[in-house]
Amino acid sequence: MRNWFSRWTISQKIVASFILLIVIGSVLLWLPISQAFGSQATYFDHFFHSASLVTVTGLVDTPIAQTYSFFGQIICLILMQIGGLGLMTIVASIVTAFGKRMSLSERLAVQEGLNREDATDFRSFLSTILRYVFVIEGIGFFVLSFRFIPEFGWAKGLFTALFLAISGFTNAGFDTLGSNSLAAYVHDPLVNLVISVLIILGGIGFHVWFDFASVSRNWIKRKGKKKLLYFYRSLSLHSRLAIVVSLILTGLGTLLFLLVEYQNPETIGDFSFGQKLLASFFQTVTMRTAGLTTVDFTKVYPFTLFWFIISMFIGGSPGSTAGGLKTTTFAMIVLLIYNVFRGQKNVNIWNHTISETLVRNAFVIFSVFFSAFLLGTGILSLLNPDVEFIVLMFESVSAITTVGISAHLTTSLGIMSKITLMVLMFAGRIGPITMAESLARKDKETKNITYASGKIIIG
Amino acid sequence: MRNWFSRWTISQKIVASFILLIVIGSVLLWLPISQAFGSQATYFDHFFHSASLVTVTGLVDTPIAQTYSFFGQIICLILMQIGGLGLMTIVASIVTAFGKRMSLSERLAVQEGLNREDATDFRSFLSTILRYVFVIEGIGFFVLSFRFIPEFGWAKGLFTALFLAISGFTNAGFDTLGSNSLAAYVHDPLVNLVISVLIILGGIGFHVWFDFASVSRNWIKRKGKKKLLYFYRSLSLHSRLAIVVSLILTGLGTLLFLLVEYQNPETIGDFSFGQKLLASFFQTVTMRTAGLTTVDFTKVYPFTLFWFIISMFIGGSPGSTAGGLKTTTFAMIVLLIYNVFRGQKNVNIWNHTISETLVRNAFVIFSVFFSAFLLGTGILSLLNPDVEFIVLMFESVSAITTVGISAHLTTSLGIMSKITLMVLMFAGRIGPITMAESLARKDKETKNITYASGKIIIG
Ligand SMILES: [K+]
Ligand SMILES: [K+]
Repeated sequence: MRNWFSRWTISQKIVASFILLIVIGSVLLWLPISQAFGSQATYFDHFFHSASLVTVTGLVDTPIAQTYSFFGQIICLILMQIGGLGLMTIVASIVTAFGKRMSLSERLAVQEGLNREDATDFRSFLSTILRYVFVIEGIGFFVLSFRFIPEFGWAKGLFTALFLAISGFTNAGFDTLGSNSLAAYVHDPLVNLVISVLIILGGIGFHVWFDFASVSRNWIKRKGKKKLLYFYRSLSLHSRLAIVVSLILTGLGTLLFLLVEYQNPETIGDFSFGQKLLASFFQTVTMRTAGLTTVDFTKVYPFTLFWFIISMFIGGSPGSTAGGLKTTTFAMIVLLIYNVFRGQKNVNIWNHTISETLVRNAFVIFSVFFSAFLLGTGILSLLNPDVEFIVLMFESVSAITTVGISAHLTTSLGIMSKITLMVLMFAGRIGPITMAESLARKDKETKNITYASGKIIIG
Repeated sequence: MRNWFSRWTISQKIVASFILLIVIGSVLLWLPISQAFGSQATYFDHFFHSASLVTVTGLVDTPIAQTYSFFGQIICLILMQIGGLGLMTIVASIVTAFGKRMSLSERLAVQEGLNREDATDFRSFLSTILRYVFVIEGIGFFVLSFRFIPEFGWAKGLFTALFLAISGFTNAGFDTLGSNSLAAYVHDPLVNLVISVLIILGGIGFHVWFDFASVSRNWIKRKGKKKLLYFYRSLSLHSRLAIVVSLILTGLGTLLFLLVEYQNPETIGDFSFGQKLLASFFQTVTMRTAGLTTVDFTKVYPFTLFWFIISMFIGGSPGSTAGGLKTTTFAMIVLLIYNVFRGQKNVNIWNHTISETLVRNAFVIFSVFFSAFLLGTGILSLLNPDVEFIVLMFESVSAITTVGISAHLTTSLGIMSKITLMVLMFAGRIGPITMAESLARKDKETKNITYASGKIIIG
């Protein structure tokens, strides 16, 4: 048995682990003890929720608060946390904790699943990740408590704060507040800003955390003037690229949302300027990866939905719990175009040259991801000819990028559409990991058959 | 003056020539003699029509038949024919006809504008193209006359047949029938099949015509059994790829249209099976490039619009009057994915290896084209928040791929939206030519600065 499992490829192990976790989760959520009073949820609903929680998507059939008891909500929280950290991390950490040494191949498996480059000192690497996660979630939980304990009392207040801290940091985007996400807190700077920071930190990826921490340590020790520019330049190329793309997307998104929705009375039209800015910023941050909302997405202009479809598609950064194409993958595409039009054969950025294989892989990932989106949207539109098309695109991209926001559509969909969404969530969550693994594995066994040059006219 | 013009890059010359032709066309269409009785068209409408005609798009503000006199319609026909053949071909042919020898640089300009690979014997090359065009259009005109002369009498019948033959072969998609395109001929096999053949021949590109003709000549001379497989294998890689992709797209499209719209009473639901098949086939053929319609696109299912958006985007083949990404460019992307997942480093197809530069250029063209589509759709959606989003996507892709089909939207758009459409048509028509030219030119002067390898984590 053990031998049989060990012969699986890493991708197969990852897929199997995720499916197993989703099934276990669905059974736990289906137990009578997990049900809220009066909940009508079927096993399929629980299965859908478990898939959504484990893939940290955030789409729900029926609101968590009205479906699950306190026990059920704890299950939700655990599934979300495990899914968010990545099953492989957990598996590895359990192995580590039990004192069993991982074989090199096991370590490589975990490392590839996490996009980690060097496998040295895996234990300390893992425990560092977990420490970051718990410290950041802990601080978020602590600060959010100041809002929710006065509102809901100790027990529910603490739990709500914990749930939202984890939901934000893992970019899952679930809540236990009801069916309108964070709409009640649209003008609350504390809730908006704390959750925004959690989402941003969670979505930027651990490569950037580690890099930031190490550069900070050197910077503090450094004598003389402490220039910010020097700090920035000390960061790795990857960190700088991820940060710059994230800043541009967030800045541009906030501006576009603010300008387009400025006078829309159904969204932010009636707010003061500061309130408009806060809502625009929060929506933009949460929209790229997390999926919490303070605004009703059935009421925004089509352009806003369109822009958010694009920004969801780009998504967060690698090595994070965020989904989507990823900021750095997107940057490879932009950089290729930029360099080609400059008449530069190499793909150069900030005095570095990107390898052709990396650029090529970026396009492969984009193409596969985009095809899956088209296929998902096509199936949803066949199943729901009466639903407005952009809402279906929104739902489809939201599932595949595991953002999990919905223009209040999920609940009204038929079972076939929900299965489509589940497949998209699953593919969106584990697709990139397994694709990266499979590309890396195939790279080792790459054939290189060269034939006569084929003349094709394109363009 | 001459010296000043000759210092322009080829791209600048192409852009300037097209703009000049559009302006001249708009003035001619605006003349009182060109107006139909009771036409209310403004100069802007004529300008829009001229742009649409020269770029062989086919979007109209007001129907040709109700806007222009017989004289005006002849102007339309000439603009469409010149635009279809490519301004550069015409310029070159005039120069040739006047006995002036073109300089090598001029020939190269025309050749690059036409995606022609070798510049040897340019005159005969050009006259061969023109001969093909006039022979095929002539046959189409002759056959179509049998339908339209009995219906409209000699004068109008002949003109209608000529107009549709040119409109079909140049993939322009205009008609002089009224405001419902070919809806009245939905069950007419002669009109549907003749125009389909014209569109297919026009959209496959002259590389394939020449190749087909040369292989045919050898095949006829060949002794022994004349196997079709041998014929197919004698075609160039480019021809085979263009033909296979076109066949797949047309076959799949016909099947999807038939299945999805099978029971839609507003489109083909009430037809007999043969009629359904004819309408599905015709719509699929015309939809990829030409834009003539027999079915009302305001009545189809969203999935059908979605599929047509994809198939318009892919478009026709290089060296043709069709727009879009192009069949072979699309094939490069599919082949890269296919080879990567087979663990094959090279992009191989049918015992040929495609150069990395070609694959890379295909992605560059795709990215630029797709970005333009997103930008165009975004602007249209900002300007028209109340129009259904998929209809705007349809209009935007229709303009940029110069298909020129509309779900009856163009007429009701405001002036800013129409300007957006004009820019898209123009960019879609000359963008790929100038991009190919500029990529080729830059390839010669390519810099190749290599820095330290940049480590980026993607996916
Ligand atoms: K999410
Ligand atoms: K057209």
